[in-house]
Amino acid sequence: MQNIKSKKAVVLLSGGMDSVTVLALAKSQGYEVYALSFEYGQRHSSELKAAKLNAKHFKAHEHRIITLDMGQFGGSALTDHSIEVPTQESDEIPVTYVPARNTVFLSYALAWAEILQANYIFIGVNAVDYSGYPDCRPEFIKAFETMANLATKAGVEGNKLSIHAPLIDLTKAEIINLGLDNGVKYAETISCYQANAQGQACGECDACRLRKQGFEDAGVKDTTRYT
Amino acid sequence: MQNIKSKKAVVLLSGGMDSVTVLALAKSQGYEVYALSFEYGQRHSSELKAAKLNAKHFKAHEHRIITLDMGQFGGSALTDHSIEVPTQESDEIPVTYVPARNTVFLSYALAWAEILQANYIFIGVNAVDYSGYPDCRPEFIKAFETMANLATKAGVEGNKLSIHAPLIDLTKAEIINLGLDNGVKYAETISCYQANAQGQACGECDACRLRKQGFEDAGVKDTTRYT
Repeated sequence: MQNIKSKKAVVLLSGGMDSVTVLALAKSQGYEVYALSFEYGQRHSSELKAAKLNAKHFKAHEHRIITLDMGQFGGSALTDHSIEVPTQESDEIPVTYVPARNTVFLSYALAWAEILQANYIFIGVNAVDYSGYPDCRPEFIKAFETMANLATKAGVEGNKLSIHAPLIDLTKAEIINLGLDNGVKYAETISCYQANAQGQACGECDACRLRKQGFEDAGVKDTTRYT
Repeated sequence: MQNIKSKKAVVLLSGGMDSVTVLALAKSQGYEVYALSFEYGQRHSSELKAAKLNAKHFKAHEHRIITLDMGQFGGSALTDHSIEVPTQESDEIPVTYVPARNTVFLSYALAWAEILQANYIFIGVNAVDYSGYPDCRPEFIKAFETMANLATKAGVEGNKLSIHAPLIDLTKAEIINLGLDNGVKYAETISCYQANAQGQACGECDACRLRKQGFEDAGVKDTTRYT
């Protein structure tokens, strides 16, 4: 049985504004943080540089980057380079949706949590701004948690795993204010779906528009580096 | 909306006796089969050769092998070469248990199913013989299915995904008889945790003992190739 006082937490860290905010929050709440990132053929690989920078800045106990081969399945504008990244808003589930992405990410987080004997996984999903992604909804997170506790030794032995999604009901403006209160430097986070190698954002894709609006709504200077 | 009549199914195929039996069963039930295997640092990589052979034999529409980096997390005798494979039975969860393995495998199957617009995933888990593995139990499979239907576009659009685990309540002897009825050649399946490069089994590990007993109980000649 692990020492509960250690409060080990696996934090999914993409390098975007949401996951970095979650990292800062977990750290300020006293968790021993194990940051987990994925290289999965995403166009915006400058996100990973931001992930490394922030894992260091927020003193993650360890930071692992797992290489996934999800691109080979195709089906998303983020990994399939034959699909164009849209710049128009839409009510449909966006083509930037990566099939089962959060399920796969959380499954790896679960595997690492089990080995670390960590009782917490943090994920920066957000239901308000990304309502088009089915795997960002509270009912998905809850169902994953239920499944996870049936899947593992820890669950069987009564050592419950909790999945924390602290941003799930927040607006982008609220996320930004939360992050600023916890030491996040948003210039060092990447949200853009097609950021360049220098980490500069396009300012036009869905993610950029939501982020810009967030800074406006929060009444805070937008420190994002645009091309 | 997909054409339901196509009955596309993603079948998790390790190359072991259980998954090959499931493949044969899905095929004989008229599914269009998409076989999915993983290279995850397992000691018994001759399993993958058996997977390829059987995917071909049972005319899978497609067979993909995904390389995973689970070994880097450590924690199992099957991927961590510093832990010895046990040859004694035990009531504990075995050290050959790979953390969250079936969760990770099913997550990839889910991603592929979503892209294929397949409504079925087949997995050869078996609760009777492997009761020590938490992720082989019916309640785990059910919880994964519930989660999967909340995670995906298909689920959101009411196009339900079903996870079939047809061996879950069968004994090894029943599995063997089912497989023989559906054209499985068990000499071309690998169960041994430490099979050699020629696909010969040790005859002593947990998996070998369960398999041997299965042939005995079924009253069928054991065609396994032993060292």
